[in-house]
Amino acid sequence: MSDQIQLIPGNSLITATPEEGRMLAVKMSRLVIKITQPDTEIREKLRPVYASDAAMLIAIGQTVAIEFATIAAANNYWKDK
Amino acid sequence: MSDQIQLIPGNSLITATPEEGRMLAVKMSRLVIKITQPDTEIREKLRPVYASDAAMLIAIGQTVAIEFATIAAANNYWKDK
Amino acid sequence: MSDQIQLIPGNSLITATPEEGRMLAVKMSRLVIKITQPDTEIREKLRPVYASDAAMLIAIGQTVAIEFATIAAANNYWKDK
Amino acid sequence: MSDQIQLIPGNSLITATPEEGRMLAVKMSRLVIKITQPDTEIREKLRPVYASDAAMLIAIGQTVAIEFATIAAANNYWKDK
Amino acid sequence: MSDQIQLIPGNSLITATPEEGRMLAVKMSRLVIKITQPDTEIREKLRPVYASDAAMLIAIGQTVAIEFATIAAANNYWKDK
Amino acid sequence: MSDQIQLIPGNSLITATPEEGRMLAVKMSRLVIKITQPDTEIREKLRPVYASDAAMLIAIGQTVAIEFATIAAANNYWKDK
Repeated sequence: MSDQIQLIPGNSLITATPEEGRMLAVKMSRLVIKITQPDTEIREKLRPVYASDAAMLIAIGQTVAIEFATIAAANNYWKDK
Repeated sequence: MSDQIQLIPGNSLITATPEEGRMLAVKMSRLVIKITQPDTEIREKLRPVYASDAAMLIAIGQTVAIEFATIAAANNYWKDK
Repeated sequence: MSDQIQLIPGNSLITATPEEGRMLAVKMSRLVIKITQPDTEIREKLRPVYASDAAMLIAIGQTVAIEFATIAAANNYWKDK
Repeated sequence: MSDQIQLIPGNSLITATPEEGRMLAVKMSRLVIKITQPDTEIREKLRPVYASDAAMLIAIGQTVAIEFATIAAANNYWKDK
Repeated sequence: MSDQIQLIPGNSLITATPEEGRMLAVKMSRLVIKITQPDTEIREKLRPVYASDAAMLIAIGQTVAIEFATIAAANNYWKDK
Repeated sequence: MSDQIQLIPGNSLITATPEEGRMLAVKMSRLVIKITQPDTEIREKLRPVYASDAAMLIAIGQTVAIEFATIAAANNYWKDK
C-alpha cells in the first residue's frame, strides 16, 4: 500500500455539475485499485484483461454506480443548480 | 479513457417522470462501460456475449438498480408529480 | 435496445401496499433484462437456465432487494397507511 | 411466475423488534426465489446446493443485509422502542 | 431453518461505540449463514474454505460493509457521543 | 476470530477530510478480512492472489465504495468544511 497515492482528487466530493461528479466517481474507483495494486506494470497488464471482459466491465459499472451515489448525495443531487 | 464521452446525458439527474429516470439509469450504466472500453469494435463484440448470458444480464440489472436508486432520490421519488 | 418497452409499469413508484411495491420491484428488475435482451426467443431460452441455478436465483434476489429499497423509500415505507 | 405467492408476510415492513425485522428480511429474500422458481421440487433440489456452498451462503448473506437495511429504515431503526 | 437461532445479539442495533457496531455487523452477517445452514458440522467444513479464498473473503467484507451501513445509520453515526 | 483486532482505527467514523475518510474506508475493509482470517501467513499468501486478479481488484473497489458511503454520510459529506 502506497500511502502517497491521493485517493480523492481535490480532496472534496463537491463538484459543479453531475457530469463532473460522475467523472469523479470513475476516478475514485480507479484510485482504489491503484492503492491496492501500486505496481504500475501489473496494473497495465490487467487493464486489457478487464476492458475486454464483459463481466468485469459490468462489475466496474456497479462500483462506479456506488461511488456516484455517495457523490450525488453529497451534492444534494445538484438540485439547487 | 476518452474524456470526451459524455457520462450523463443532459448533465442532470432530474427527469420529468420515473420512466425517463429509469431510461437515464440504463444509459448511464452503459456510458460507464463506454468510457472504460472506448473501442467501439470491442464493445460490439462483447454485446452478444453479455446479452446471451443469464448471469451477466442479472448483473446488468443490479447496476441499473443502483443507478436508478440515485436518480429516484434526486427526483424525490417523483412524489410531487 | 428497444425504446418501446415500458420500464416502469404505471410510470410511478407509488403503490398502495408493500406487497404491491414488492411486485413492482420484481417487474422492474425483469424489464431491465427485457430492454437489454429484447429478443423474446433468447430470453425464453435463458429463463430455465437462471431459474435452475442457485447462484443466479440469489443474484436475482439481490437485484429485487435493491429495487425494492428505492420503491419502499419512495412510499415512505407505507408508514402513513 | 405465480402471482398467488405472498411476497411480504403480513404485507407490512413494520415489526415489533429488530429480531423480528431480521427474520422478515430472511423470509422476504426467500420468497423472491420462490416467485422466480415456483416449482417446489426444483427448489428443494437447489437448497442443499447453496446451503453447502460457501460462496452462495455469503451471497445470501448479502441479500438479507440489503433487505434488512430497508426494513430497519422503515422502523426508524427501532429507536423509538 | 432453525427459528431458535437469535439473529441479532441483544435484539438491538444500538451500540455504545463504532467499534462495537462494527463487531455487531460481523456477528449479524455470520448468524444469517448459521440460520441458512444450521448444521454445525457442515459450517465447520466450510469455514476453512472461505477463510482461505481471497474472493470469498472480499465478498464477506462486502456483506459486513452493508450490515454496518445500517447499524451506523441506526446510531446516527455515533455523532452524538 | 480474534476479538483483539481493532476493526475501526480510532473508534470513530469522523475524519477531518474526504481523503482521510477514504483511507479509513480502505483500512476498515482490510480489517474485516483480518478478523475473518487472523492467520497472518495465510493472508500474506492471499495478497498477491487478489492484487494480481482484475476481478478481485474490482470487488475490493466495490467494498471500499460501500464503506466510504457510510463514512461520507457520517461526516455529512464534508460539506461544511
